[in-house]
Amino acid sequence: MIKAVDINCDMGESFGDYKIGNDDKVVPYITSANIACGFHASDPNVIDKTVRLCKSHNVMCGAHPGYPDLMGFGRRFMDVAETELINYIVYQVGAVKGFMDLYGVVLQHVKLHGALYNYMVNQEGVFLKIIDTLKKAFGDIIFLTLGTGKTSGFKKRCRDMGIKIALEAFPDRNYTDEGELLPRKYKDAVLHDNELIARRAVQMVKEQGIRSINGRWIDMDIDTLCIHGDNEESIEAAKKIRDYIIQEGIEVKPLSGFIK
Amino acid sequence: MIKAVDINCDMGESFGDYKIGNDDKVVPYITSANIACGFHASDPNVIDKTVRLCKSHNVMCGAHPGYPDLMGFGRRFMDVAETELINYIVYQVGAVKGFMDLYGVVLQHVKLHGALYNYMVNQEGVFLKIIDTLKKAFGDIIFLTLGTGKTSGFKKRCRDMGIKIALEAFPDRNYTDEGELLPRKYKDAVLHDNELIARRAVQMVKEQGIRSINGRWIDMDIDTLCIHGDNEESIEAAKKIRDYIIQEGIEVKPLSGFIK
Amino acid sequence: MIKAVDINCDMGESFGDYKIGNDDKVVPYITSANIACGFHASDPNVIDKTVRLCKSHNVMCGAHPGYPDLMGFGRRFMDVAETELINYIVYQVGAVKGFMDLYGVVLQHVKLHGALYNYMVNQEGVFLKIIDTLKKAFGDIIFLTLGTGKTSGFKKRCRDMGIKIALEAFPDRNYTDEGELLPRKYKDAVLHDNELIARRAVQMVKEQGIRSINGRWIDMDIDTLCIHGDNEESIEAAKKIRDYIIQEGIEVKPLSGFIK
Amino acid sequence: MIKAVDINCDMGESFGDYKIGNDDKVVPYITSANIACGFHASDPNVIDKTVRLCKSHNVMCGAHPGYPDLMGFGRRFMDVAETELINYIVYQVGAVKGFMDLYGVVLQHVKLHGALYNYMVNQEGVFLKIIDTLKKAFGDIIFLTLGTGKTSGFKKRCRDMGIKIALEAFPDRNYTDEGELLPRKYKDAVLHDNELIARRAVQMVKEQGIRSINGRWIDMDIDTLCIHGDNEESIEAAKKIRDYIIQEGIEVKPLSGFIK
Repeated sequence: MIKAVDINCDMGESFGDYKIGNDDKVVPYITSANIACGFHASDPNVIDKTVRLCKSHNVMCGAHPGYPDLMGFGRRFMDVAETELINYIVYQVGAVKGFMDLYGVVLQHVKLHGALYNYMVNQEGVFLKIIDTLKKAFGDIIFLTLGTGKTSGFKKRCRDMGIKIALEAFPDRNYTDEGELLPRKYKDAVLHDNELIARRAVQMVKEQGIRSINGRWIDMDIDTLCIHGDNEESIEAAKKIRDYIIQEGIEVKPLSGFIK
Repeated sequence: MIKAVDINCDMGESFGDYKIGNDDKVVPYITSANIACGFHASDPNVIDKTVRLCKSHNVMCGAHPGYPDLMGFGRRFMDVAETELINYIVYQVGAVKGFMDLYGVVLQHVKLHGALYNYMVNQEGVFLKIIDTLKKAFGDIIFLTLGTGKTSGFKKRCRDMGIKIALEAFPDRNYTDEGELLPRKYKDAVLHDNELIARRAVQMVKEQGIRSINGRWIDMDIDTLCIHGDNEESIEAAKKIRDYIIQEGIEVKPLSGFIK
Repeated sequence: MIKAVDINCDMGESFGDYKIGNDDKVVPYITSANIACGFHASDPNVIDKTVRLCKSHNVMCGAHPGYPDLMGFGRRFMDVAETELINYIVYQVGAVKGFMDLYGVVLQHVKLHGALYNYMVNQEGVFLKIIDTLKKAFGDIIFLTLGTGKTSGFKKRCRDMGIKIALEAFPDRNYTDEGELLPRKYKDAVLHDNELIARRAVQMVKEQGIRSINGRWIDMDIDTLCIHGDNEESIEAAKKIRDYIIQEGIEVKPLSGFIK
Repeated sequence: MIKAVDINCDMGESFGDYKIGNDDKVVPYITSANIACGFHASDPNVIDKTVRLCKSHNVMCGAHPGYPDLMGFGRRFMDVAETELINYIVYQVGAVKGFMDLYGVVLQHVKLHGALYNYMVNQEGVFLKIIDTLKKAFGDIIFLTLGTGKTSGFKKRCRDMGIKIALEAFPDRNYTDEGELLPRKYKDAVLHDNELIARRAVQMVKEQGIRSINGRWIDMDIDTLCIHGDNEESIEAAKKIRDYIIQEGIEVKPLSGFIK
């Protein structure tokens, strides 16, 4: 029986005068922040502000690197060579970690962004090389990726190799029968009923799985729920998810509190 | 009587398919490398390669941040607010330090680039804030800046505050009567006679000063000589400078070997 | 007695997933749009959309080039060499004009942006070179700049040289005694009372001048009012300005309708 | 029997202080220049200089747009949505055309670059949309793409639709049995024997085809030869190709001289 779960959210996605997200409104409900690193979103000023915001709310910080594509918000696949991709990730994590070092904040985790996240879900070999490199550079951090029907095996293999892996689920997203996220181009991809979203969040955590869009049960083995701070609606969902989880007697705490 | 001096060079200034500098040819003659960080030059692949090159030659690594102006190679003043400028520097140093951490290489020093370097020579207040921030984030690193007729006082003030400051001279540049670099727009700004350049280097180190373009003596109190790897000519100068220094019985070793 | 005035607004300042401005809400109230060109704001998709939006509302299109500084929204001075600056402007105007050519829309005018706009107000020599170059490249377009107490002479000189110059005033901004915009760092720089703003707009047009923050009268000789679409408040101001002008029997029409 | 052929070369690929290519050395041997537009290479100053260089040598100018990927030199596939891709191309062609308008130079043609060029060779539907859009924006320009064993049909279809299409061959590249370029990862992809390269150029033009790497004959129906100015070797090849073509009594002249 699960005793604790993490709640994570992408943070620090503004850039210059451009604002995305309501970080200060969603931060009270989360325990781990995925901080954009300046390639697909963010800039040094935004990173500085975001690390300080997280610290002041005792939210654990992670780096959230993406493709070098600000114009496409990192949502478009780029055919980058493997070694170059790893260098892009080291650069971004190092840059964000500089601010964490400045404020005495620990780098808890790394989560890839957008098209890079989606691509890596099916590239176990490259993903393991990325993990290996980041461990050498930045120590014993946690790697956060998508929990699907297929990832239990991956999770076990990581644990056997001494990798701290954490899997996540999206309470506001529908899943395919294979346990992957239903792509956004389908009309039911994203849920908007906050009551339903919060109940799904509880089910995901307590039962460690969810029904697909076709009603098929997907086992997941998840450690964290990914929520959003894009608008008022999603912030209300965030609050309700957290409240419902706590009402079930499950502790909401950062990944570093239970991923060993 | 001076016993040791450092030789530093800007390195890793290529970008993508674009190549600047002959890093592999100049690296045997230097002891400290100023590694571009991706804002005015360089990219993650170049940084990766440069840190490995320096490590393989036992050359100490420093970060060399500049203005976010790749198109202008960081040589144009940008009116960036003070706190934003500091964030730009933290970001860049952190990004390069990620690769140093990956390869087990120590961040020895930070040297600002181009227009930012020139601007800060006369902005002691802001420069001290930058130093203060970088020490908090990255520990007890050395700060490298221009030695002029005025900087002895600055050097002493830094030492009194516990700041590891290092001053540099340019053997291939003429100086004004105030001990500043004669701007490149003047025809005698840069020297091209390698014999003369090497003899000036020796004089700068042994006598801790140099005559200005008008023949006036400038006291300097320098710790390191800045050389260049742009072309064959400058690489021959690098070799000759190093040879002449050693022939004088002065040890060529990295800043970390004698800046306390 | 003035018979017509133009109303202009900066448009198309979004970038990728980042949104700035409410172009579709402010477009009904304006006659000339200053379209960002991709250096300080905007991207090709935003330009495409903005040109089509303007066309559908019979709003005349102008190009709005700025410094190559997306992170600073073009609001920071950059020390760019004169010939390079002119090349940056040709590039940006050409890029936007491509979309105008695609949709059969005429390039009515050019207005510089942000720090470049402010810098050029006091650089008549360089500004005239820019105008000369743009006329050669793009034909007989209108150049829009700030009307101040000093610009009447400049306007006459331009007219004598065959340059189509248009001057603008900002109804929602306070002016110094010299007729320049009170910098934003002062607390009264921007007005927020829409009734007052609209009455000032009428006065600026009818009396061709305005009182400075200290009560001194500034002659202006203006052709267009610059309004904003940043938020709900400014859009209400836009509507009121237009209504009040029309109620005075003054026609609101694009610059090309009366600048000869 | 063919009477004339064009020789084209990618030009203006430098960026800021970064130099690629020897444009001034290769320009005497070519008749059409593909000018980089600032997304995968080049900047406004380089474009300005390149257009003037071409004009002074009576070389016809074309725009050479690529993916927005300076770090990858436009050589990496990016999964850009079709309408966004077309906007990227309009932007780039417009930007370069601004300089052509400034110097009274005609936009002769458009040729896509790198990964975008390769991708479009097999995307006839999208390529036709791009052509349609560019014709609307920029008039009756020529579209330059790869001549392969399959493109004769495409060429005829374009001609029937009133599209000015031109096909090119690469004398210094080996071809597959399908008439496509042997990818650079194979060791024989690029030829280095200038005598052989020049004889292949003549054969390509006179016989309108070439033998594949396996000895199979490929029909091509080409209008232009693509050469390179990267280094001394390729410039010697350029000279020899031009000399040999002329010795065969074939005129070397720009595409606009014979593509109707």
